[in-house]
Amino acid sequence: MNLFYSKNTTINHNEIVILDQENRHLTKVLRKKTGDTIYVTNGEGVLFDCIIEDSNKNKSVLRVQNYSTFNNNLPRLKIGISLTKKTDRFEWFLEKATEIGVSEITPIICKNSERNKFNFDRSTKMLLSAMKQSLQYKLPTLNKPISFLDYISKVDDSYDSYIATCIIDGLDLFNRKLYKGNNSEVLIGPEGGFTLNEIDLAKKANFVPVSIGKNRLRTETAGVVVCSTFSNIN
Amino acid sequence: MNLFYSKNTTINHNEIVILDQENRHLTKVLRKKTGDTIYVTNGEGVLFDCIIEDSNKNKSVLRVQNYSTFNNNLPRLKIGISLTKKTDRFEWFLEKATEIGVSEITPIICKNSERNKFNFDRSTKMLLSAMKQSLQYKLPTLNKPISFLDYISKVDDSYDSYIATCIIDGLDLFNRKLYKGNNSEVLIGPEGGFTLNEIDLAKKANFVPVSIGKNRLRTETAGVVVCSTFSNIN
Repeated sequence: MNLFYSKNTTINHNEIVILDQENRHLTKVLRKKTGDTIYVTNGEGVLFDCIIEDSNKNKSVLRVQNYSTFNNNLPRLKIGISLTKKTDRFEWFLEKATEIGVSEITPIICKNSERNKFNFDRSTKMLLSAMKQSLQYKLPTLNKPISFLDYISKVDDSYDSYIATCIIDGLDLFNRKLYKGNNSEVLIGPEGGFTLNEIDLAKKANFVPVSIGKNRLRTETAGVVVCSTFSNIN
Repeated sequence: MNLFYSKNTTINHNEIVILDQENRHLTKVLRKKTGDTIYVTNGEGVLFDCIIEDSNKNKSVLRVQNYSTFNNNLPRLKIGISLTKKTDRFEWFLEKATEIGVSEITPIICKNSERNKFNFDRSTKMLLSAMKQSLQYKLPTLNKPISFLDYISKVDDSYDSYIATCIIDGLDLFNRKLYKGNNSEVLIGPEGGFTLNEIDLAKKANFVPVSIGKNRLRTETAGVVVCSTFSNIN
């Protein structure tokens, strides 16, 4: 099954128009033709079952035959994660987190972060591609980068909050502290780790320090382990 | 802490010689000098605490001050995983699996595998680098690629055997089937998945089919989720 994306399409639409890169993929790579059935999601939990009514190299017009809504009530996972020195490592995290399952990602700038530049449009494309690849119908929310202090100052009481660190000995493992069914948010630091001051500030803002495992993990690896652990528990 | 690697060094050695790329890293990147303390592992569970006795751009001679052995009795995880079409995706798996924890990796060639070439030396270097980065002292065993049939014909009774697939509905999740404390081996298929015939053959060889999660995961993502799940359980 191949999945296409159409932004802002609602269940009231009878017709969907596919343009640009999505249309090139549909016509050139998959060689779909008039009369073929294809599946489209709006990234907001709706899957549209469509037939190609007209298709050329510039656009394809689809007729909606049916739709299904996926408003799952699964608990949500928010991750606040430091940008990495090398962009490709952060992009791997975006792809893998989306595949495994995440609700919201916020790049954070910490004391030891070695980068603060972030290509929002390119990152959004990676999320879209991973959502389609893994056959999901809900696009994770991607926020613009904010400072560590700004992140921890916005407390959301409907989430259990954790901060992952390996500089404190004897911490409980994340998978032992997680409550099945609860929304959770996890902060993941840069290669140099969070500073003790950052951890203290997070604790004051009700973030619980946890360990992600016995080995020292890179930032993007810790992020992927958090998604996998959360998915296993819930 | 920075960790260096010295192959074939045993606890009987009083002196360790660091050459080539390891020496360039030691002298050029970290700018270590005579008298500095550095840590070396042989990748077989021994950590050497050394002092630099002599160092130049060609080699560094280290005097062993002390050593610790890490012969942990943790259960072992073996992964048989299809090579991926794009090499960087497989290499990403090698790096992440090593960081999170894996004992043995065997690339397998399945019916739907789109690649059978494998750069063994380059892959070994990635494992070494990830072992050092994550501060571990045991290098995972890396095998040369073998066919799916050859892999399942070599049954090791000291392991629980699983085959991950998403083409059978209603399968138990891997994390619910795992027994804490047991050695486990997991087969992970190519992008096109294992064929029904391959799954049947694996079942006859006592591999239990399991699901890795609700989403369709890429090969390398499934591999990393397996490592993370195994690490969480044990």
